[in-house]
Amino acid sequence: MTPSNDTIVAPATASGGAIAVIRLSGPDAIACCDRIFRGRRPLCEAPAGTLHYGRIADGERTIDDVVAALFRAPRSYTGEDSVEISCHGSRYIVSEILALLLRSGARMAHPGEFTTRAFLAGKLDLSQAEAVADLIAADSRAAHAMASTQMRGGYSSALDTLREELLHLGSLLELELDFSEEEVEFADRRHLRSMMERIGAEISRLTRSFSLGNAIKEGVAVAIVGEPNVGKSTLLNRLLGEERALVSEVAGTTRDTIEERINIDGVLFRFIDTAGLHTTDDRIEQLGIDRTHQALARARIVLQLLDATRPLPELLPVGKEQTRLLVVNKSDSPHKLIAPEQTPPGTLFISAQRGEGIEELLSGLRATLDTDSLFDGDPVVSNSRHLEALGEAHDALHRALEALDDNLPADLLAEEIRLVAHHLGTITGRITSDDILVRIFSKFCIGK
Amino acid sequence: MTPSNDTIVAPATASGGAIAVIRLSGPDAIACCDRIFRGRRPLCEAPAGTLHYGRIADGERTIDDVVAALFRAPRSYTGEDSVEISCHGSRYIVSEILALLLRSGARMAHPGEFTTRAFLAGKLDLSQAEAVADLIAADSRAAHAMASTQMRGGYSSALDTLREELLHLGSLLELELDFSEEEVEFADRRHLRSMMERIGAEISRLTRSFSLGNAIKEGVAVAIVGEPNVGKSTLLNRLLGEERALVSEVAGTTRDTIEERINIDGVLFRFIDTAGLHTTDDRIEQLGIDRTHQALARARIVLQLLDATRPLPELLPVGKEQTRLLVVNKSDSPHKLIAPEQTPPGTLFISAQRGEGIEELLSGLRATLDTDSLFDGDPVVSNSRHLEALGEAHDALHRALEALDDNLPADLLAEEIRLVAHHLGTITGRITSDDILVRIFSKFCIGK
Repeated sequence: MTPSNDTIVAPATASGGAIAVIRLSGPDAIACCDRIFRGRRPLCEAPAGTLHYGRIADGERTIDDVVAALFRAPRSYTGEDSVEISCHGSRYIVSEILALLLRSGARMAHPGEFTTRAFLAGKLDLSQAEAVADLIAADSRAAHAMASTQMRGGYSSALDTLREELLHLGSLLELELDFSEEEVEFADRRHLRSMMERIGAEISRLTRSFSLGNAIKEGVAVAIVGEPNVGKSTLLNRLLGEERALVSEVAGTTRDTIEERINIDGVLFRFIDTAGLHTTDDRIEQLGIDRTHQALARARIVLQLLDATRPLPELLPVGKEQTRLLVVNKSDSPHKLIAPEQTPPGTLFISAQRGEGIEELLSGLRATLDTDSLFDGDPVVSNSRHLEALGEAHDALHRALEALDDNLPADLLAEEIRLVAHHLGTITGRITSDDILVRIFSKFCIGK
Repeated sequence: MTPSNDTIVAPATASGGAIAVIRLSGPDAIACCDRIFRGRRPLCEAPAGTLHYGRIADGERTIDDVVAALFRAPRSYTGEDSVEISCHGSRYIVSEILALLLRSGARMAHPGEFTTRAFLAGKLDLSQAEAVADLIAADSRAAHAMASTQMRGGYSSALDTLREELLHLGSLLELELDFSEEEVEFADRRHLRSMMERIGAEISRLTRSFSLGNAIKEGVAVAIVGEPNVGKSTLLNRLLGEERALVSEVAGTTRDTIEERINIDGVLFRFIDTAGLHTTDDRIEQLGIDRTHQALARARIVLQLLDATRPLPELLPVGKEQTRLLVVNKSDSPHKLIAPEQTPPGTLFISAQRGEGIEELLSGLRATLDTDSLFDGDPVVSNSRHLEALGEAHDALHRALEALDDNLPADLLAEEIRLVAHHLGTITGRITSDDILVRIFSKFCIGK
C-alpha cells in the first residue's frame, strides 16, 4: 500500500445533529473544495489552520452556508492537505455537498481510509491507528483509558525498543557467521540469555494483560446462575435500580440478548441472566439460547446465587479462567438454613428484595479487576491481533532460548531472534502487508 | 429575552460518527475552554478564525486529542465568542468533555439556544432562524430550496419593505389628526387605497403559497384508493421499484405507518396505501387506522385506481383542496372493459404488473405541483406561524379597506394599518415576545 495521490471525501459525523462535518483529504483537497466554495477568498490563498465562512454553491444554486477548516500538509490528521466542511446537519445537504465534491474530483473514502493515510504518512503507528477505533467505541472510563494509552504510544515505544535490541543481537550473531572460522563470540551468551529473558518477561506481561484488556473492552461478563426462584431477576433489577444512573445505554444490546450492562466504577459489566436457559422447540429461540450458553462459557465471573432458606447446594464447577462469586440471597429470612460458617470465605450475604449487601456485591465484583496500573497509564493489550503476534513472538523466543541451551549454531539462533523481532514489529506496523492493513482498516467507520 | 451573559455548551453533532463537535458560546467561552485545553498556546492569545490542535485534560488525565476552532465576537454563528471542539466521535469522550466544561463555568444550552442568541444578536431574523430548523429537516431538493430561500432572507426583506410603507402611511394618517381642525389630507386616499391593495395582493400571494409550501415540507400526501384487488400494492411496489434510488430513507416512518416515501424530481411524495383500512377489534390497530383516515382526509392527491377488466365504477368524491388522479390498471388485459373514451380527460392507463405507464404516472403526480418559481428562489410560506400572522394581517387590511370605503376617521384607519404592520412584523421578529421565542426555539435540537 503506497501513499495515494488522489483526494478522498467522506462524512465524518453521524446524521441527525445540528451540524455535520464533511472531511476531504489529499493533494487536491483544497483545489477540489475551492471549486464549490464561495468565500471572501479562495481557500488556496489562505494560510494553514484557518477557518473560512462561505457558501457551497452548485453554479447559481446555493446548497448551504458553511465553515471550512483548512489544514495543510503535514499538519493535519492524515498528514495531507485537508479541508473539513461544517454544514447544517441535514442528510440532504450532506449528500448534495458530497455529490458536488465527487464531481469536483474527489472520490468517496473507504472505511478507515483517513486513518490509513495517517499511518502511511507516519503520523501514527499501527497499534495507535487501531486504538483510534477502540477510542471511538470506548464506553467506560477503563475502556477509554486503555485506548487512550495505546493511542498515545502505549506499548509501541516499549515494543520498538525491545525490537531494536533484538535486531542488534541478531546482527551481532550474524557477524559471528562471517568470522565462523575463528570461533569468536561477538554476542556474549550470558548477556544474550539475560536480555532474551527480560524480553520474554515483557512479552508475558503484555500477554497476561490481555485477559484484563479484553474484559474491559468487551465488558466483564458476569453469569448469574442459580436454581429457579433464588431471586436472579430480583437481583438483576436491584443492581440495575441501584446503578440506574450508571447504566450505559447501548442501543439494541439489551433487547437482543438477555444481558444488562452496568458501569461499576469506570468498568462496564455485562450481566447475563441465565433464566432464559430452558429447552425449546423454537429454532430461532434455540439460537439465542445457544448464544447465551456460549456467553456463559466465556463469562469471566460466575455469580452463583443461593437461597438462604434452602439447604446449601453443591458449588458449580467453574473454568480455570473464571472467578466464582458465591452470593446467598434472602439472608434476612427468619427461616435461614445457610449460616456464614458453612460457606467458603468471600461468600456474600444479601437481600435482593431489601437491597441489603448490594454495595458490597458491587465492590466485590469490581475488586475482581485490578485497574490501578491501567488508570496510571500502564499499557494493556486488548487487541486480539496483538495477542496473536505476542504469542508468535513468545514461541520464537522460546525456540531461541532452547537453541541457546543446546549450543546451536549462531545462524539458527539469529533466525529465531529475527522472528521475535518480526512478530513484535507487526504490532506497531513496522512490518506489515497490504492484507493486514486492509483487514484492520476495513473495520473502521467511513470518515475516520 | 435579553442577551445573555453566561456561556453555553452542547454537543452539536449526533453520536455515532468518526468525529463529534462540541459547541461553546458566550463571553467566557474562550477562557472556559482554555481551562481544559492544552495546546501550543492558550486560545485566548490566538487570533480569531484559527484552528488549534491540542488535548483536553482533566488534571493529569488526557481525555482526548482535539482540534479547537476559535471564533471571536461578532464573527461567529451566535455573534458571541465561540469555540467548536472536534473530538473523536465517542459518546463517552463527548460526555467527559461536556462534564469538564460544565465544571469550568459553562452551562448546558437549551434546545435552539445558539440560534436564539444569533437572533438576539441580530445575525438573523426570526423567519431566518425558523428556516435553520427547516433546513436541517429538509429531505428533498424542493424542501431544501424553500428553507434555503427563507434562510437567505426569503420574504423577510419584502415583508420589511411592506411594513415600513404601512408604518409610513400610519404616520401620515396620524399627522392628519394633529391638524384635524383644518381637514387636511396628508395621505392621499387614492394613493393609500392602491398601496393597500398592492400589500393585500402580496399577502394573498404568500398565503396561497402555503398550500405548496406545506405539501413540500411535509411531503405530498397521495392516497391510493380503490376496490380490493385492483392492484394497489402492486402499484406501490412498482413505484418503489422504479424509483428505488430515489426513495428517501426516513428511519422508522415506513414501519410505523402504512406509508411509503418516494422522491419524484426533487419533491417528496408520501403514498398512503389504504389497503390497511379495515374493521378491527384491536384497539392499537384501530388507532393506526384512525390515523390513516385522518391522513386520507388531508391527502393532497387522491389516486383512484380502477381495474380495466371491471366496469367503470363511480368516481370518489374529493375535497375542494384535493386533486383526483384517475388511474386505470391492467390496461394491457385482453378482457379490458374500460376504454379511454369512457373516462374523463387526464385519466392514465397503466399496467402496474408490467410497469407500463409508470413514468407517465410519476410525471402526472409531479405536475400537480408547480415548483418552477420555488427553484428560481421565490419565497414560499411553509410555516404555520407565518400563515397565521398573514391571516391576521389580511383581516386587519380588509377592515382598513372597509374603513376607507366608509370614510371612517383617520385614527380608526391608522389603527388598522398599524395592526397590519404589527402582524407582518411578528413574522420576521421585529415584533416579538419571550413567549413566542421560547415556543419557536424549544422545537430546535440541542446544539443548534
